[in-house]
Amino acid sequence: MDEHALAELTDVLPDGVVVTDPITMEKYRFDRSQDTGTGTPALVVRAEDAAQVQAAVRWAARHRVALVPRGAGSGLSGGSSAVDGGMVLSLERMRSVEVDADCQVAVVEPGAFNAEVKEAAAVHGLWYPPDPSSYEFCSIGGNIATNAGGLCCVKYGVTTDYVLGLDVVLADGTLVTLGGKRIKDVAGLSLMKLFIGSEGTLGVVTRAVLRLVPEQAARSTMVATFPTVDAAARAVVAMRRTMRPSMLELMDQASINAVEDHRPRGLDRSAGALLVAQSDAPGTARTEEVALMSATCEAEGATEVFVTDEAEEGEMFVEARRLAIPAIEAQAALMLEDVGAPVPLLPDLLAAIGEVAAAYDVRIPVIAHAGDGNTHPIVMYDPTDAESEKRALAAFREVMQRAIDLGGTITGEHGVGRMKKELLPAQLGPDVMALTRRVKDALDPEGILNPGAVL
Amino acid sequence: MDEHALAELTDVLPDGVVVTDPITMEKYRFDRSQDTGTGTPALVVRAEDAAQVQAAVRWAARHRVALVPRGAGSGLSGGSSAVDGGMVLSLERMRSVEVDADCQVAVVEPGAFNAEVKEAAAVHGLWYPPDPSSYEFCSIGGNIATNAGGLCCVKYGVTTDYVLGLDVVLADGTLVTLGGKRIKDVAGLSLMKLFIGSEGTLGVVTRAVLRLVPEQAARSTMVATFPTVDAAARAVVAMRRTMRPSMLELMDQASINAVEDHRPRGLDRSAGALLVAQSDAPGTARTEEVALMSATCEAEGATEVFVTDEAEEGEMFVEARRLAIPAIEAQAALMLEDVGAPVPLLPDLLAAIGEVAAAYDVRIPVIAHAGDGNTHPIVMYDPTDAESEKRALAAFREVMQRAIDLGGTITGEHGVGRMKKELLPAQLGPDVMALTRRVKDALDPEGILNPGAVL
Ligand SMILES: Cc1cc2nc3c(=O)[nH]c(=O)nc-3n(C[C@H](O)[C@H](O)[C@H](O)COP(=O)(O)OP(=O)(O)OC[C@H]3O[C@@H](n4cnc5c(N)ncnc54)[C@H](O)[C@@H]3O)c2cc1C
Ligand SMILES: Cc1cc2nc3c(=O)[nH]c(=O)nc-3n(C[C@H](O)[C@H](O)[C@H](O)COP(=O)(O)OP(=O)(O)OC[C@H]3O[C@@H](n4cnc5c(N)ncnc54)[C@H](O)[C@@H]3O)c2cc1C
Repeated sequence: MDEHALAELTDVLPDGVVVTDPITMEKYRFDRSQDTGTGTPALVVRAEDAAQVQAAVRWAARHRVALVPRGAGSGLSGGSSAVDGGMVLSLERMRSVEVDADCQVAVVEPGAFNAEVKEAAAVHGLWYPPDPSSYEFCSIGGNIATNAGGLCCVKYGVTTDYVLGLDVVLADGTLVTLGGKRIKDVAGLSLMKLFIGSEGTLGVVTRAVLRLVPEQAARSTMVATFPTVDAAARAVVAMRRTMRPSMLELMDQASINAVEDHRPRGLDRSAGALLVAQSDAPGTARTEEVALMSATCEAEGATEVFVTDEAEEGEMFVEARRLAIPAIEAQAALMLEDVGAPVPLLPDLLAAIGEVAAAYDVRIPVIAHAGDGNTHPIVMYDPTDAESEKRALAAFREVMQRAIDLGGTITGEHGVGRMKKELLPAQLGPDVMALTRRVKDALDPEGILNPGAVL
Repeated sequence: MDEHALAELTDVLPDGVVVTDPITMEKYRFDRSQDTGTGTPALVVRAEDAAQVQAAVRWAARHRVALVPRGAGSGLSGGSSAVDGGMVLSLERMRSVEVDADCQVAVVEPGAFNAEVKEAAAVHGLWYPPDPSSYEFCSIGGNIATNAGGLCCVKYGVTTDYVLGLDVVLADGTLVTLGGKRIKDVAGLSLMKLFIGSEGTLGVVTRAVLRLVPEQAARSTMVATFPTVDAAARAVVAMRRTMRPSMLELMDQASINAVEDHRPRGLDRSAGALLVAQSDAPGTARTEEVALMSATCEAEGATEVFVTDEAEEGEMFVEARRLAIPAIEAQAALMLEDVGAPVPLLPDLLAAIGEVAAAYDVRIPVIAHAGDGNTHPIVMYDPTDAESEKRALAAFREVMQRAIDLGGTITGEHGVGRMKKELLPAQLGPDVMALTRRVKDALDPEGILNPGAVL
C-alpha cells in the first residue's frame, strides 16, 4: 500500500482505527468458513461511527481499493474473507443499541450482536425474533447483509421481515437513510429491501431500525426420535400442513453423535434422527398444539416422543441442536452447506444428500431448520489428505446441484459469499445473473464493494 | 399511432387482444383516484399470457411507446392512469389461481383478484392474509406492484411478506423468474423484493408464488366508542404496547356518518370515533385478549365497549369500516390520502389533519389502519367549484408534509402513483431520489415503463 495514499486516510481517522500490522490483521482475514482462498488485506479499518465509514469508503473509492465489510466474522460462506491488498472495514466497534419501547423498535448500530438486541428488547418486555444459531456471536449488520434466518423463522420469518429502516453508505461514500420507525411505508422503490441480503456488495449498513414485538409466550418443547431421517422428514411435512410450530429442527444420527462426543447431553445415539419442535401458542392452545405434534410424529413412526413445558429442559435440547456445528467442527475440517427445497421435498433433499455422501465416499452429517425446508449438510474432510478434500469439494457442489434440481436453493440463509458463487448461475440462470450485474453496476460502478463475493 | 407500427403488434397477437376503439379504451384511462390529469392511450393490450406480455413490451420498447401496466384499476394514487399516446397493458385476463396445498403456496396470474386467491386457498384450509379493503375488486398484480396492506396487516404483515416468487417481464421483454416455492432463499440479490412496490415502473409481473398459512382461527370483535378521535388514538397506542390484535381500525365521526347515510349499519352517529378491533388468538387466549382490549379502551375514556364472538356480527362492523371510502365517494369528489407515522405519533398525526382541515376550510373525514399508524384522510371538495378544489389540493399536500414532519410517510400502502409524486422528494431527500433514479435507469433505460408514475 502506497504510504502517501495511506496517510490520506490515517490523517482523517483517530488513532487505532486504521490497522496495518499483520498480526492484528490476521484475525480479520477469515470468517467461520475458514475459506482457504482468503487474501491478505493491506489495511483494516475499525470504524467508530458512520462518518468514519464514509471516510473509509470515499478513500477506497478514490484509490480503487477493494473493500470488504465485516461484522463479527461468523459467516459460513466466505462473504467476509479478505481480499489481497484490499481493506477490511470492520463494524465491530459500532455497537450501540437503543430501544424505543413506544414505537416497538430498536435503533441499532451494525456491530451490535443479535443477542445484545434481544437483551435490550427484553428489558422492555419486547422481543427481536430472528435467531440464528450463532445469535450470541454474530452482528446485526451481518444478519442484515445475509438476511439471516434461524430457529423461530418457521413461525416468525427472517431478518428482512423485521427491518424497518437502514442507513447505508453507498460505494461513493454517500450516506442514505431508508425507511424509519413507521411500520408501513411504500413511498418510492423498495430500496431498503434490496440492501438486505446483498452481502456487502451494494453498500455498508451503518444503522438499522428493527421491529420488535411483544415478548414470546411460554413455550413447550417436543423431542421426537425416529428410526430414519426419512421418517423424521415426513413428520415435518405432515406437521407443516396443519400447524404453526415456533420451532421445527432436525438432527440426524451423525450430528447427534457429534454433539454427544463434544458435550454429552444425553441424546439417544442410536436414533436415526431427532426432531426438536416447540409451540408458543397462547394459553391452552399450546398443550393442544404439542399434543397434535406428538400424535403426528407417532403416526409417522417416531419411536419415542418426549414433551416438556419446562423452559430450561426444553432449552437443553435446543442448545444441543445449536451445538451441532461447533461439535462437528471439532472433529474434522468441513464445508458447510445451506441448501433448501420446498418443504414437501425435504425427504427427497435429504435422500439426495445421502446419495451424494455414498457416491463420493464422504461423511455428511445433517442438521436442518426442517420446518422451512432449509438444511445444513456438513461435508467433512481431512485437510491433510488432498484426495479427501477433492472428494469433499465435489460432494459439496453436487449437493447444491441436487437442491437446484429439486426446485430449491443453494443457500437458504448463509449467503453465497465466495464459497457458493460458482453454482449461483446454475440456480438463477443467465437472465437473472445479467439483471444482478446491472443492479450491481448501477450501485457500485467501480466494483469496490466486496469484489469476488456473490458475483 | 402509425398503422404500420400497430400492425406489427396486431399481427402477432390474437384478435381482441389489442384494442384501439376509444369507447372501449375509456374504462382503461382512470384508476379509482379519478386522476384528472390522466391521458388518452393509443392502444390497450389485454394480454392472455406471459408471452403476449413479452410481445407487447418488446413492441413498446422498439417503438418507444409509454406502457402503463394495469390490474383491476382500483388504485388510489393514479398509478394506472393512462399516458397520452401510450399503451395500457391490462392483465385482467390473466387470472388463473393454482393452490399447491402441500407447499402451502398459491401460484397466481396477476389479474386474479385478491378475493379469488383467498377463496382458492380456503378450499384447502389455507389462508392468504393480505386483505386490502378492496380485496373483492383488486388484483394480485396491483397488490404486488403497490405492496398492498389491509386490515389484518397489523398482525400478519403486508403483501411483500407473502411473496415467495415472481415472474417479471423486464423493459426489454426478457422474462425473469425470481424465487419460487421454497420458503427461505438468499441466493443472489433480493431482486424479487425490489419489484414489489415498484408500481409498474421496473417490470410487469406475470406470475406470483404466494405464501399461504393455515386458516385463521375464530375471531372475536370489539367495537369501542370514544368521545374524541384523540382518545381513540391514545387507546390504539396503549393497545399496541402489549397486545397483537389481528385488526385495529379507526373511523372518525364524519366517516361514521357517511356510512350511516350511505347504508345504515346502526353505528353511533354521535361518537367522536370508533375503534373496530379483533383478536384471533387461539383458544381461551382470545377471550383474555379481548378483555384486555376492552379494559384498555375503557381506561382511555371509551364511552361504550361492545364485544362479540359471533363471526357475522363482527363482520358487520368490519364491513361498515370497508364501506367508508365508497360512502364518502358518494357524497363529494375527493382526494384520498394514505399518510402514516410511527404508531405513538398517531394522535399527533390525527391532530395535524384536523388542523389542516380547519386552516383550509375543507372537510377531511378520516379512517385508519390505526394499529399500523396508517391513516386515510379523505379530502372532500366540490368539483364544480374551482376554489374548493384549489383549497382541497393545498390541504392534500399540507397533510403529506405534516406526515413527513412527524417522521412519517406520504403513503403507507396505496403507492405514490401520479398523485403524490410531487411530495416524494420532500420525504426521501435528494440522495435517495438519485439512488432511485439510478436503479430505474439500470432497469428501464428508455423509460418506457409507467413514465410519470413515482418519479
Ligand atoms: C455455529 C454457527 C451457527 C450459525 N447458525 C446460523 C443460523 O441459524 N442462521 C443464519 O442465518 N446464519 C447462521 N450462521 C451464519 C452466520 O452467523 C450468519 O451469516 C450471520 O448473519 C453473520 O453475521 P456476522 O456479523 O458474523 O457477519 P460476517 O461474517 O462478518 O459477514 C457476513 C456477510 O455480511 C457482510 N456484512 C457484515 N456486516 C456488514 C455491514 N454492516 N454492512 C454491509 N455488509 C456487511 C460481509 O461483507 C459478509 O458478506 C451460523 C454460524 C455459525 C458459526
Ligand atoms: C374502496 C377501496 C379500498 C381500498 N383499500 C385498500 C387497503 O386497505 N389497502 C391497500 O393497500 N389498498 C387499498 N385500496 C387501493 C387499491 O385497491 C390497491 O392499491 C390495489 O393493490 C390496486 O390493485 P389493482 O389491481 O386495482 O391495481 P391498479 O389500480 O390497476 O394498479 C395499481 C398500480 O400497480 C401497477 N400494476 C398493476 N398490475 C401490475 C402488474 N401485473 N405488473 C406491474 N405493475 C402492475 C399499476 O401500473 C399501478 O401503478 C383500496 C381501494 C379502494 C377503491
